[in-house]
Formats: sequence, structure tokens, C-alpha cells
Amino acid sequence: MTKRKILLQFDSDPHASVFDAVVAVDAGVDQLLQYSEVEPTEVRELVHGAMFTRGPQDLLNTAIFIGGSNVSAGEELLKQVKACFFGPLRVSVLLDANGANTTAAAAVLAAAKHVELRGATAAVLAGTGPVGQQAARLLARQGAKVHVASRSLDKAKHVCGVIQQLVAGAELTPVETRTSEGATAAIKGAQIVIAAGAAGVELLSSDARAGSRALRVAIDLNAVPPAGIAGIDVMDKAKERDGLICYGAIGVGGTKMKIHRAAIQRLFTANNLVLDAEEVFAIGQELPS
Amino acid sequence: MTKRKILLQFDSDPHASVFDAVVAVDAGVDQLLQYSEVEPTEVRELVHGAMFTRGPQDLLNTAIFIGGSNVSAGEELLKQVKACFFGPLRVSVLLDANGANTTAAAAVLAAAKHVELRGATAAVLAGTGPVGQQAARLLARQGAKVHVASRSLDKAKHVCGVIQQLVAGAELTPVETRTSEGATAAIKGAQIVIAAGAAGVELLSSDARAGSRALRVAIDLNAVPPAGIAGIDVMDKAKERDGLICYGAIGVGGTKMKIHRAAIQRLFTANNLVLDAEEVFAIGQELPS
Amino acid sequence: MTKRKILLQFDSDPHASVFDAVVAVDAGVDQLLQYSEVEPTEVRELVHGAMFTRGPQDLLNTAIFIGGSNVSAGEELLKQVKACFFGPLRVSVLLDANGANTTAAAAVLAAAKHVELRGATAAVLAGTGPVGQQAARLLARQGAKVHVASRSLDKAKHVCGVIQQLVAGAELTPVETRTSEGATAAIKGAQIVIAAGAAGVELLSSDARAGSRALRVAIDLNAVPPAGIAGIDVMDKAKERDGLICYGAIGVGGTKMKIHRAAIQRLFTANNLVLDAEEVFAIGQELPS
Repeated sequence: MTKRKILLQFDSDPHASVFDAVVAVDAGVDQLLQYSEVEPTEVRELVHGAMFTRGPQDLLNTAIFIGGSNVSAGEELLKQVKACFFGPLRVSVLLDANGANTTAAAAVLAAAKHVELRGATAAVLAGTGPVGQQAARLLARQGAKVHVASRSLDKAKHVCGVIQQLVAGAELTPVETRTSEGATAAIKGAQIVIAAGAAGVELLSSDARAGSRALRVAIDLNAVPPAGIAGIDVMDKAKERDGLICYGAIGVGGTKMKIHRAAIQRLFTANNLVLDAEEVFAIGQELPS
Repeated sequence: MTKRKILLQFDSDPHASVFDAVVAVDAGVDQLLQYSEVEPTEVRELVHGAMFTRGPQDLLNTAIFIGGSNVSAGEELLKQVKACFFGPLRVSVLLDANGANTTAAAAVLAAAKHVELRGATAAVLAGTGPVGQQAARLLARQGAKVHVASRSLDKAKHVCGVIQQLVAGAELTPVETRTSEGATAAIKGAQIVIAAGAAGVELLSSDARAGSRALRVAIDLNAVPPAGIAGIDVMDKAKERDGLICYGAIGVGGTKMKIHRAAIQRLFTANNLVLDAEEVFAIGQELPS
Repeated sequence: MTKRKILLQFDSDPHASVFDAVVAVDAGVDQLLQYSEVEPTEVRELVHGAMFTRGPQDLLNTAIFIGGSNVSAGEELLKQVKACFFGPLRVSVLLDANGANTTAAAAVLAAAKHVELRGATAAVLAGTGPVGQQAARLLARQGAKVHVASRSLDKAKHVCGVIQQLVAGAELTPVETRTSEGATAAIKGAQIVIAAGAAGVELLSSDARAGSRALRVAIDLNAVPPAGIAGIDVMDKAKERDGLICYGAIGVGGTKMKIHRAAIQRLFTANNLVLDAEEVFAIGQELPS
């Protein structure tokens, strides 16, 4: 008899995410086990319960989703989960804390529909935040030159260094955006701009945007007004505005949801998958557009 | 494909109610997501997870149940839940903290089987408690004159004031029941008495009861002996005792359960329902008796 | 309509066991309700929710599993659960905190395949631990003479006293195993030895083992190297080594899982079962081998 698909939801927040739970249910999970306030030291016992209860041939029907609003905490949980496995005794695991992996993947895929990423220049505003970092990393991996913009030049340099370690040959430029001149500098020469900042903060003004001749695609991931990129509507989905192709948070959200669901479904196809930023992006690339 | 019916159970207690969970399962919920110790400040994030995961046409398959032993806490959670919605982005919600809405509805429906509520006089003992308040409100809404009895006259007056605001033209009389004379005064002229007090507290003695000529229906909602109304058995269901039609807690409980289940099922018929005391009572009225 | 099978998982740990949850799902439970950090004082409210929601004829579809790593805490929860029931208003309950009951049953059943327990002599190393105590009790009940070995003679005597109260006529001998001579004394004359110690602690050396002529079956329940009994492999399942039939933790684990699943399924055959050590063992005896 086919085993029911069990998903463990590990979440570092006081309440395990409703969002992630609904997506899991809609992705066809039969049994969701929600765990909130999961600490790294508690992972081993939980994961052993997943590893030691079903035979090797059934382990692909048990999987782990790591969520929670704190991306660093999620990354630490992933590290602990992977350390539990040995030999064929393992289950598949997906990291999407704060929705960062699926959102970054959706944003970069949106850009790729309009601009050939290899050789292009892309600016990521708030490029040191959870989604921004992943977007910058994915763009670099696809061969784009990336401007990592942040109010703090030190943070921007640090993120460039981290991505350099992960993506050999990446061309990364840290940019400080404390002033409006900074934003202008950040998008200079870029065909793509992705704004991945906090809710309700304008990162790029109309003037700064209008001053850039090269820009072809602008993607704003902020769902709460005012928009992160002035003039973009949250519903925009490849909407042309003044010759610029625009995406808003909800316009990107549909693709994010499809990637999120597909990644959950992918978990149950094998028992040895580790789905982090780049694996999630690859899943997005395979989706029918 | 039809989406699975997801119910979020928000509970202010340390453990989300087993009672409410079993009723939800028996009402046909496919996926129950239990959340305990839910604070008002945490509602927004949870509700957004319900609002932003499914398309508008599927939102009727996601709903929220608010329970927990503390009725005030439940009311505050309901207020916070409603504040999250905007436009068509909403899900249906049922408040039944401490079972107060379904129990009060069942008690008033039991009374209505034997006495025409419009123009009748009804006494609610412990009328300032969670169930008593809702019963008094429902009786007033149906056109009965209501004696709201409490050990504290101030509390009784306060509740009368609250109901007056909700039900235009309500005829309400606060009564103090600190002494046995108080209980006699409370039921004077009443055809209906509902005792909604704490477990194991007798609110109406045999003598006080026998002294009332008008009384036709006596409903005791206390399940733990001694009875709240002397002489009523917990199993009584329209049982005639000395010419008085009697209901005990379990006698009323069957109807309460049917209303509770029906209210859960109603949630999944639309995405814009708010089921509080009066909506729950209306659902009870529609049930085949 | 047949009611869905609801299992309440009561666990005293911060996170309800994944292991127990997966077994419950694989045993056919339709709806699992996980409760962690359950305190004895909280049991009543939870159990009442199980007792008062379904009609008497449907109560066999609601049941309780008590787990958690702390066996004493589990026993206290069981006591509280049983105290809630009255008359026909009850649901079935299984205690398997720390997997002690199912593991002890599997170990004793493994021994019984090779040695007639009645009249045999069995040594239980770490016989005062959670699994050891249950194994000693089951062996005594089956008519074996039992050596209860512990580093503390006082603890060994105490456990012998406890089992004596439970099993009339039991032949029990406390043995101190602080030194290697102790281990030799513990297995002297025994046909069976079961090591139920903590992970990674060797309780019986090769020399001590080789010195025993009577020994026919050696069972080690420690899954983490070094083995509790020197020379046994964790995968051993009736593996003959130097004329001795050997079982390791995983070799016993398959039977443990079958017993665990069967015990969960048994819960849903009646509403009045209390499945503790001996009932769990009896379920194991009925399994096709």
C-alpha cells in the first residue's frame, strides 16, 4: 500500500506559518506535522523520527519543509537537518524561510523572460536582505553582472564576498544607496532592477528610474504601499509603463506560488533531495510558463 | 480540482480545544490547523497566510474557528481577524469561545419549542457570564422581556446596557440574586428560566422554583452536580417535572452539537461569513428539529 | 457514516514525537491531534473533549496515545486519563512513552522464539531503566527467573519489589553491576541476556560473555556504538555468533514497529481498552511471526 505523504513543517516562529501550511496542503501533502519554535538542538530527535519509522523504499514519502520568518534561523535548521542523515537513511528537505527562495526564484525568472541574463547587468536594491541576497546569487549564477545595493556599503561588500564564494567567476559590484544618488548609481547601466526591500519603503524614485536609459525590466517585491519602485503597481505583471516592463509583488506572486507548490511536490519524488535557492530556481525554470 | 477544506483553529488556551477539534473533523473539515495561545498581535500574520494562498474563487475552502475558554479573548481575536480583510480577500470566521454561542443558541431554541418568545418573560440566572449574556441577548432579539440576574447588580446593569446597544427596543431588567429572595424576584412572572452559572452552583432552589406560577420551561446548563436548578437532571430533555418542562445540560447538548457542526459546515459555503451569536442562532433555527 | 479515526497524541516533551506521529499515520489514523508539553493538570479538559463529542457508539473511533521521552511523566498522564472516565463514557488509551512498552515487548518476544521462557533464567542489564524494567516485568510474567542488574543495588532491589507487587510469585534477583565481576554474576546461569542501557555504553564485555556456558540468546537494545553487548551488530536478527543467537537494536526494531502499529490499530476496535506493558506484549504475541 502506498504510504501517505507526510511533511514535517519546521518553523522558528511562535506559530508555524499558515501560508506554508496551506501551500503544502494544496501541493497534495496527506499529513502535515507542524512544529513551531524549533531550535537547532531539537532537530536531531525530530529528524530521527522521520528517518527511522519507514523502510528505505518508503522514505520518499516523508519530507521536511523549513520555513519561518528568520532566514538565518532557517539556514541553521537546514544545516542541522543535513547533519542527521547517514547512508541511505535520509529524507528530502526544502528550505524556504520567509519565502525567500521561492520569491527570489520567481523574480529572477520574471526578468529572464525579457532579458537574456548571461552578460546582462542587474541591480538588486536591498540586495543584502533575505530575498535580495538570493536574487543576487541566482542572477550571478545565470551569468549576469550584479550590482548589490544596500544602505550599508559594508553589508553590500560582505554579501558580494559570500556570493563570490558560492558562484565562481561571479561579477559583483557593491553599491551604497544611502542617498538618491546612490540609487542612480546602482541602476546605472543595468537592464534589470529588482527591489527587495522592507514593506512600504521607496527604494527608487521616478526621477532616478527615468534617468536610466538601459533599464528594460523593473521588478518590485514590496506588497505594501508605497511601492519600492515608484510607479509600479502591486498587480503589475509584465505591464509596460513608459517603455519599461514592470512587475509588482502580486504579479510575481503567482509564479512564486507555482514554484513553492512544485518544490513541495518534488520533495516526494526521491528521499535524497536538498532544495535550497538554486534547486528551487531550477524547479521554476522547468515550469510551463 | 476541489480544494481541501482547511480550518484554522485559533485558541487562546495553552492547548487548542480537543472538543472543538473533534467537532470540526466530524463536520467534514479536511485539514485542521490548530493554533494555541494565539495573541491578538499574532492574528494578522496567520490570517494573511489564509488570505494570500488561494485564489478568490477558492477562498471559501479556507475558514477560521475562534475558540478557547476565555470569551473576551475570543472576541478580541475576532475583532483582529475582521480587521485583516480587505475587498474580496477574506475568509469566513466562526466565534464560539467557551462554546458560548452554540450553547446559548441551543438553550434559547429549547425554550422556543414550548413558549412563544415574542412577548414572553425570561429570566437568565448568571446572566452576566459568557453563556448567560449571549442567551439574554438572543432572547431579547426574539422579542422576549429579559431579567438579567447576577449576584452583582452592577454587572447585571452593565450587561443590560450592552445588550440595549445591540438590540434596539430590548426590554431588560437587571436583578440582584445575592440572596434566595433575589432568585425569587428574578423568576417572578417569567415563563422561561435559563440557569447559565458555574459548575456545581445551585442558582435556584426547589422552594423558589415552586413559588413561581408562571414558569413553564426551566433550562439548566450546568453539567456537574449539584444542578443549577434544583430537581433538574443533567439528561432531562423536555422532561416534565411537576408541570414544568425541564432541560439539563446534556439534554441541551445534543442540539448544541448539531448547531456547532452546522456552523462549521456553513463556513465553507462562502468566503465572507462572520458567524457570531445571532448568526449561530439563525443556523440553529434552520436545523430540522 | 463511519467516523474518522482520531488519535490524540499526548507528549510531555516540548515537541510531540515525530516517530510516534509517523507510526500513527501508518497505522491508519485519519486525524492526528498532537499535544506537546502536556501537564497532568491539563489532561482532564483534553480528555473531556474526547469523551463528550461523539455518541457512545462512535467513541471507539477516538483514542489516546501517550508518548514522550519521560516514562514516569507518561505513567502519570495515563493515571490522569483513566481518572477522567466514568460509565460507558471513555475512549481507549495506549501508553508507550519512550517506546518502552513496545521495545520491551519486542525484545522479550525475540527471546521467546529461542528459549521457553517458563522456568528459564534471564538477565536484564540496566534493568532499572525505562525499557529494562518493562522487559524484566514481562519476563517475570511469562514465568522466567529474572536477574535485575543495575549499577545501583538499591535501585535493582527497588525494581524487584515493584515487579513483585505486579506479578505474584515472580522470582527476581537484584544484582549490582558496578564492576565487570558484577556483569559476570548477572548473567551467571542465564539462558537469556537483554541489555537495555543508555546509548553507547558497553554493559557486557566479550570476556564476560564468553565465560557464560548457559547463555543462548543475547539481545542488545542500544542503537549507537559501542554496542551494549560486545560483538553484537546493530543489524543482528537471530544471527548466530560463537553459538550464541544475537539480536541488535535494529534487528529488534522491526518487530517493535509492528507491535507499535498493531497497538494503535487495536485502540480503534473498542472504546474501553487500556494498553500498557502487558497488553502491548499480548498484542505482540498475536502477530504473525
